[in-house]
Amino acid sequence: MTANTVVGVPAETAGGERRVALVPKVVERLRAKNISVVVEPGAGSAALIPDDAYVHSGATLGDPWSADVVVKVAVPTDAEVARLRTGAVFIGFLAPLTQPERATALRAAGVTAFAMESIPRISRAQSMDALSSQANVAGYRAALLAAEHLTRFFPMLTTAAGTVPPAKVLVLGVGVAGLQALATARRLGAHTTGYDVRPEVADQVRSVGAQWLDLGIEATGSGGYARALTDDERAEQQRQLAKAITGFDAVITTAQVPGRTAPTLVTAEAVTGMRAGSVVVDLAGESGGNCELTTPGAVVVEHAVTIASPLNLPATMPEHASELYARNVAALLELLVDKDGALSLDFTDEVVAGACVTGQEV
Amino acid sequence: MTANTVVGVPAETAGGERRVALVPKVVERLRAKNISVVVEPGAGSAALIPDDAYVHSGATLGDPWSADVVVKVAVPTDAEVARLRTGAVFIGFLAPLTQPERATALRAAGVTAFAMESIPRISRAQSMDALSSQANVAGYRAALLAAEHLTRFFPMLTTAAGTVPPAKVLVLGVGVAGLQALATARRLGAHTTGYDVRPEVADQVRSVGAQWLDLGIEATGSGGYARALTDDERAEQQRQLAKAITGFDAVITTAQVPGRTAPTLVTAEAVTGMRAGSVVVDLAGESGGNCELTTPGAVVVEHAVTIASPLNLPATMPEHASELYARNVAALLELLVDKDGALSLDFTDEVVAGACVTGQEV
Repeated sequence: MTANTVVGVPAETAGGERRVALVPKVVERLRAKNISVVVEPGAGSAALIPDDAYVHSGATLGDPWSADVVVKVAVPTDAEVARLRTGAVFIGFLAPLTQPERATALRAAGVTAFAMESIPRISRAQSMDALSSQANVAGYRAALLAAEHLTRFFPMLTTAAGTVPPAKVLVLGVGVAGLQALATARRLGAHTTGYDVRPEVADQVRSVGAQWLDLGIEATGSGGYARALTDDERAEQQRQLAKAITGFDAVITTAQVPGRTAPTLVTAEAVTGMRAGSVVVDLAGESGGNCELTTPGAVVVEHAVTIASPLNLPATMPEHASELYARNVAALLELLVDKDGALSLDFTDEVVAGACVTGQEV
Repeated sequence: MTANTVVGVPAETAGGERRVALVPKVVERLRAKNISVVVEPGAGSAALIPDDAYVHSGATLGDPWSADVVVKVAVPTDAEVARLRTGAVFIGFLAPLTQPERATALRAAGVTAFAMESIPRISRAQSMDALSSQANVAGYRAALLAAEHLTRFFPMLTTAAGTVPPAKVLVLGVGVAGLQALATARRLGAHTTGYDVRPEVADQVRSVGAQWLDLGIEATGSGGYARALTDDERAEQQRQLAKAITGFDAVITTAQVPGRTAPTLVTAEAVTGMRAGSVVVDLAGESGGNCELTTPGAVVVEHAVTIASPLNLPATMPEHASELYARNVAALLELLVDKDGALSLDFTDEVVAGACVTGQEV
């Protein structure tokens, strides 16, 4: 039986992007479904995945852009869109809320594009949820980063010269990334506390061994996200957080609202109230940051507090971030082919229709 | 009652040295023993300990070099030795085995110098054991560094898109640093294994949840250290380790012999046998490294394996490293003063005599 669909995997070109859209293990899985994979030479090298590993898994090395389906991680550039052939299918992150012109360009190029961000958040599509899989990586790396920048231990340490107490870690915004940050900090031996404006996540916070910080401000929104606070609520929240924060060695912030500027949770004044040597890790840098003193993409020291705002944390752990992403992509791909591995786009399927950002004509 | 002894704390001058010999908490402890402390302005700044904190703890800011006792972390430079007054006491790391000329210079300057490395390893002096306290920090940071450089998760992760297995971490050389590296890696969720040529540490390895790797080569030496292996034993060890290492995601090496070049445990060939994306953290870089492909002080990628060999890891977590060190120094200081806080060097005390590297005349 010959393969009916060819999937191309280009090397990523964005600065700092070390991920790759498919990994060898997932190539094997697709080969078993009669899907062929063409990998651009060196596509895995920033993730330390050698070309050989792809070849051993059944991929061929070559030009990925002439494939039936091109799969990518980072939003494609104009030059990349220009390399897609008319009639091709594209799968990747497409930032539909903040860069809608990407979908427009792909449609104009005659490409049928699926945005990983647009996959409906229904249980059948959980295995395709790349936002969650990458947030898991980001939360884990955020906790490691806090430990790296803290001038103190996370765990309690008992030595012949006495004891040092465990670090106290506060996570603001407890979605997937926040929960993983709490779990990781706790693993490392820190005392952990979680805060969110959605009271329904309190049980999840407790389930990873953390305390729940209740400031009495509730703002549950739709789709699992929080609604925007009113100006009064925000001011009250900032005031109360400034007080609460003084007791923590590390604060990890993850509050983002899709398509909007991130809310300020940690004011400049709150930072001045923190103990010297403490750390803020701000995961919302890409949308402006949750801390008023954040410089997105940089590590700065203000009032003897280290404020780190890494961009694209998942790319700092590229093999597993890529592996999880590749599984998400593969789950979507499997929905787009028939049992012989031939492309068969069924736009009556709400996942297929929901993820497509270029309209439903092939 | 006025203070009888003045202790001076200079700012450290060595590149990358972020520690400081006393921290505010320990200043308080010394003040209670009628010992005064003069801190050079900015001495704590690289550790993010502000001058204010020293002042609040009862220290004064000023010239530390005219004090009765000068306490430092890093081995003093010629310029620093020249600033010590005749009759002064000096306490700090002095590298007596590798830089014996330091003790000679201090003796010539009329200084009575105590080397933290020379404190006898007896139970009464455990609270002064700075080699152990700093090795604890180094081991913790080494595990964090391995997690940082690994392209994969340390913990097992279960997501809607499937599971990733926990990382496998091997620690070669299980002294204080190695044990703490094992404990930290295990905390983070890795499967851990320890190896040493001293079979008596197997139980300690198991006590931190790690497996014991037995290669059948035993080389217990004196003072808790291993003896040097014969050439044949070394070759056999390298051959067996090269085989064992292929199964691990991260290898942390800590094998050092005081005053000698570090043994090669991980050959270049062993690195080529490791899976792409794996990590070696070599803590023996300062004495040449345990891995043949190590570049001391650098992070290199060879055969798709990341090899990191940080120098002076304790300095990367400066507040707690300084605090533990300061407690070690304070315990020694308390042995050097009488109940009124006046200097009183009793060279019939084996700890005082053992730590002194400039002869016993004051």
